Amino acid sequence: MKPYTAEILCVGTELLLGNVVNTNATDISEALSELGINVYFHTVVGDNPDRLRSAVDIAASRADIIITTGGLGPTCDDLTKQTLADAFGLKMVFIEEEAQRIRGYFSKSLHNNKMTDNNLRQAEFPESCTILRNDCGTAPGCVFRAKDKIIIMLPGPPRECKEMLQNCAVPYLKRLSNSEIASHMIRVFGMGESAMEDKLRDRMLELKNPTLAPYAKDGEAMLRVTAKARTHEEAEELMSPVILEALTILGDNVYGVDVPDLETTVIRLLARKSKRLAVAESCTGGLLSKRLTDVPGASKVFNGGVVAYSNDVKVKLLGVPAELIVQKGAVCAEVAEAMARGAAEQLGADFGVGITGIAGPTTDLTQKQVGTIFVSLFDGENVYTRALHLGSNRSRIRTMAVNHALDMLRRHMTALKIEL
Amino acid sequence: MKPYTAEILCVGTELLLGNVVNTNATDISEALSELGINVYFHTVVGDNPDRLRSAVDIAASRADIIITTGGLGPTCDDLTKQTLADAFGLKMVFIEEEAQRIRGYFSKSLHNNKMTDNNLRQAEFPESCTILRNDCGTAPGCVFRAKDKIIIMLPGPPRECKEMLQNCAVPYLKRLSNSEIASHMIRVFGMGESAMEDKLRDRMLELKNPTLAPYAKDGEAMLRVTAKARTHEEAEELMSPVILEALTILGDNVYGVDVPDLETTVIRLLARKSKRLAVAESCTGGLLSKRLTDVPGASKVFNGGVVAYSNDVKVKLLGVPAELIVQKGAVCAEVAEAMARGAAEQLGADFGVGITGIAGPTTDLTQKQVGTIFVSLFDGENVYTRALHLGSNRSRIRTMAVNHALDMLRRHMTALKIEL
Repeated sequence: MKPYTAEILCVGTELLLGNVVNTNATDISEALSELGINVYFHTVVGDNPDRLRSAVDIAASRADIIITTGGLGPTCDDLTKQTLADAFGLKMVFIEEEAQRIRGYFSKSLHNNKMTDNNLRQAEFPESCTILRNDCGTAPGCVFRAKDKIIIMLPGPPRECKEMLQNCAVPYLKRLSNSEIASHMIRVFGMGESAMEDKLRDRMLELKNPTLAPYAKDGEAMLRVTAKARTHEEAEELMSPVILEALTILGDNVYGVDVPDLETTVIRLLARKSKRLAVAESCTGGLLSKRLTDVPGASKVFNGGVVAYSNDVKVKLLGVPAELIVQKGAVCAEVAEAMARGAAEQLGADFGVGITGIAGPTTDLTQKQVGTIFVSLFDGENVYTRALHLGSNRSRIRTMAVNHALDMLRRHMTALKIEL
Repeated sequence: MKPYTAEILCVGTELLLGNVVNTNATDISEALSELGINVYFHTVVGDNPDRLRSAVDIAASRADIIITTGGLGPTCDDLTKQTLADAFGLKMVFIEEEAQRIRGYFSKSLHNNKMTDNNLRQAEFPESCTILRNDCGTAPGCVFRAKDKIIIMLPGPPRECKEMLQNCAVPYLKRLSNSEIASHMIRVFGMGESAMEDKLRDRMLELKNPTLAPYAKDGEAMLRVTAKARTHEEAEELMSPVILEALTILGDNVYGVDVPDLETTVIRLLARKSKRLAVAESCTGGLLSKRLTDVPGASKVFNGGVVAYSNDVKVKLLGVPAELIVQKGAVCAEVAEAMARGAAEQLGADFGVGITGIAGPTTDLTQKQVGTIFVSLFDGENVYTRALHLGSNRSRIRTMAVNHALDMLRRHMTALKIEL
């Protein structure tokens, strides 16, 4: 059977004005590409019914599946459901169950978000469609089939779109395909994307099934292994030797396979080792704590942290010697080490992490270079420190400093077992 | 004269695979919107000559200006110049001067990038076009006019695209336009997008110039006011009464005009009032500190914070009475208040914020509902608390709890002056 082709049709004047980056198209493309569905076009159109209609007609002429984002909200320029229904000759119907859900949402909300009649427009859907639940917002999506096409409508806000994509659209599309596609993501820290590609280039060019695809994101590298076969088991069998080969080549730079991120890996390792963690952050200003507590269940292993933005807080809450800061400045290995030790001791944890540095845009009185960062790990006995130079972009410096702290933790708890 | 309309046509299979986010389309849209050129469509197409040709034909049927990105490089799938020349009936010609520039680039190159014959394909251009210099890479862009259309080709790598856009494309387009466009963004917290639209609907439908457009993002609402006129000053004059009217209607829910976010507003207000802030976070786990320190220069007003994830840390570092936690649990107004007070007192600040609650996915021993959050603000004398119910999504609960903390701070430092 010929593989399906899809077009992604993003609706929203804010995209055409350049107010918002179209990450929805990227997320959906990535998901479809994993499913083996070819995406040949993305189209972006504003909140204008005539132009939206013409874009729908063009998409219907060149794709089997149309996935829209945006225009599902309660305001008068939210026209996607109506326009798609028109284009495929369907009536709009009022779904009482959805109206009740919306009323329920507003009755639970405590602040002054009052429900208006507008909100009830979100209870209207193309006839005989399947409604897709929105677990993060009020606008549900929907799916219908008409004139040999499959139409899937997802909400515009990226968080809502991504959740509905993974929870509703991907499972729906998986059922359409008659071959199984499986993939694994090998996650790497300590080696850049191009260094990784260099080591794997020959195999990447040779392999047709499974395939290897490298990615880079937020200072990490990733390698996706994808195989297509009649059954899921066959696809896994095809991948298994290739994954082992890649793990051998990439060595201890691999921090996990199919794990979401470094922070989840660290939280899981702490739980497995029955260790508790506390952190002390200066330039990263809470980002390390925030990322650790993004992981549900972090409270079982994470005591907390101190954001020691001012030097007084470093001295008073973490016990960093005041004379050390006077002598060497707040940005040095010794302060990072004292912070790591102070975090573990003051917050009663097995491990302490300390981060100090200059995230910019300006430097401190000691005139150290922006991007100079020290990360220390104290394990109750010894203290280990990385001295880093992380360029000049404030947000990237903070992200990379936290990545390094997490990487030190996971390497320290070495017995990481790769679970396939 | 009717304003020009433009279509942005991004060429690159990596965009359709979801490997790369299409920031070029955003950058170009923003620049065109400032120039008063209407962008009605973005199209993304892969490195495939037939599909690219069909996308060019569609774009030519609905826009005056086509701006392409990508496909200008030396490899065999870089087809943009050739395909656009074909579509408009132009021949390709070899430009000796460009060939020399390319040879010069490779002779100067320090690493082992050898020139191949392929690289010389970059010296071929549609006849009678104007070549646009690429200051950051090897692939030049070009502009030509044919069949009443203006075609501008920019390179794919975002840094190169952005530079050529600002240095070449924008000055070229400015000469075409005879009107100026200006806009302001009114930022709102405490009122949802649909409630805002309800209050403004009549005016939104009436107004043609300026226009009003509502948005929602991360639990906030926004209203963009845009005007078009012969001069920038005239556009501002058209907007001024409408902005005043909107500010009156939206009242103290407006936290700023043309400010980037709540955290920047709070940091600026603290600086203006010469007040210092410290925070104590439980369920938000450092997100409030992280967002405050996202703002460059936060160190002038932000002492730091305590991420009191475990109860021991609440007691030991913040002085929350242990018996209070035993009696009422960690999630109650009294604990939030003690945390706010403890943050200000222990970290030596004028204001303290305390956040405690249940971000989920599971609840605590007291069986309080997920999404139950208490946010307290201590100003050195009094303590104020909001009790919130924020749904069930962990990430949204945390974002909204932090938004509320920032909103309490900015409302407390009331004398917010709207600067237009």
